[in-house]
Amino acid sequence: MNLLLLEPGELSAGGTARLAGRRARHVLEVLRAGAGDRIQAGVIGGRMGEAEILTATPDEVVIAASPDREPPPPSPVALLLALPRPKILRKVLQAAASMGVKRLVLLGSYRVEKSYFASPLLAPDAIREQLLLGLEQGRDTILPEVELHRFFKPFVEDLLDARFPERDRLLAHPAGAAPLEALAPAGPRAALAIGPEGGWTPYEAAALRDRGFAPFTLGPRVLRVDAAVPYAVGQAELWLRGAGRPA
Amino acid sequence: MNLLLLEPGELSAGGTARLAGRRARHVLEVLRAGAGDRIQAGVIGGRMGEAEILTATPDEVVIAASPDREPPPPSPVALLLALPRPKILRKVLQAAASMGVKRLVLLGSYRVEKSYFASPLLAPDAIREQLLLGLEQGRDTILPEVELHRFFKPFVEDLLDARFPERDRLLAHPAGAAPLEALAPAGPRAALAIGPEGGWTPYEAAALRDRGFAPFTLGPRVLRVDAAVPYAVGQAELWLRGAGRPA
Repeated sequence: MNLLLLEPGELSAGGTARLAGRRARHVLEVLRAGAGDRIQAGVIGGRMGEAEILTATPDEVVIAASPDREPPPPSPVALLLALPRPKILRKVLQAAASMGVKRLVLLGSYRVEKSYFASPLLAPDAIREQLLLGLEQGRDTILPEVELHRFFKPFVEDLLDARFPERDRLLAHPAGAAPLEALAPAGPRAALAIGPEGGWTPYEAAALRDRGFAPFTLGPRVLRVDAAVPYAVGQAELWLRGAGRPA
Repeated sequence: MNLLLLEPGELSAGGTARLAGRRARHVLEVLRAGAGDRIQAGVIGGRMGEAEILTATPDEVVIAASPDREPPPPSPVALLLALPRPKILRKVLQAAASMGVKRLVLLGSYRVEKSYFASPLLAPDAIREQLLLGLEQGRDTILPEVELHRFFKPFVEDLLDARFPERDRLLAHPAGAAPLEALAPAGPRAALAIGPEGGWTPYEAAALRDRGFAPFTLGPRVLRVDAAVPYAVGQAELWLRGAGRPA
């Protein structure tokens, strides 16, 4: 935890907040902070800044905070991901939030096992918990919007354009496509689609290409989704910053 | 497992191999493959290709393979990593191997807890096991060389130059440094240094800069090492491919 996150309303009018449970234990045991120490704190959806620990007991930590800094600017990359298996999903949600991704659509695909959609990790509270861990890691206060769409075809036909207004659309492919530098970014933002472990089906890949998702290769290897997401987001961010330069 | 890996010598002169344990269970239960099915197989350190399953029982799977393809080309990026905590190390070893990184030095730093060096995960067999999982994921047969150096100063002063002959040297920084596109790659390969969770100390960062490691920012957020590694490797690979183009 690089940033202690407070729920809106948790900070009193006098600028203090009382913590118990996971956050109090973390302050005491991991940060090893005590009364008088200063830590970074932020309000979910709001500002962040330094906080002072007023009192600290094993049951309760009381802090004083007057967050006055805006959170860092969002990543210019929005993600369209085939729903990964639950164990990987948890890591992907944390990583996406820590990188500042603010929109994430989890989509069904022919190669996504139906049972994944029954995972308790997809409950809104469970998703929010993983996103908060990512924000604490990345030092950010703005929760990403996460949507879940069970069926590929109706999402792509009816909702994709509204959800991803970005001018650049990229389709990460394990192999065979052009390298990213062969594409010219329009900028300033991109939608990035990453398929399931076995790849999108030919029909799915064609449907995304028809809607302007340009295939690019992530290299000759097959990356697991929890590595593919930061790898591809890193490349897409660097690529977008080259918008306007010769490809 | 996208590639079944065989130890050198495991393939008989007649081109068959007998699998038990984890690999047999994986073929049967995860790949759901049986007699007559074809899977991808490779010999550690050697070639890869299609294999046919001859017989499959819960105790033993017998395959016939004549691997004739070279593994994919290595990543042009070598890694100098502050030793992460054991749970994260496992993921980082897998991810590095899956991305085709072939040299990885795990280094002590002032901010690396001493206890991490006592982890059983640092035993050569344990490291090899994680690397093999990464090769199986990435479909590669060439094991990365992994070295462990407990003390920062003697490594940097006496061994760094021999271990990292790459012309480009990069130092990933959480914030404050220039973006990668502000640096001009010499190519074709780069050494990439990534610090511990709390960052290199000023002394350590200065020692690496003195040896030509150019700082660049990974963005305004603090990424956990298991996200920072693929993010930074992805950027460095794309950046290297731009060698010769105007920065």
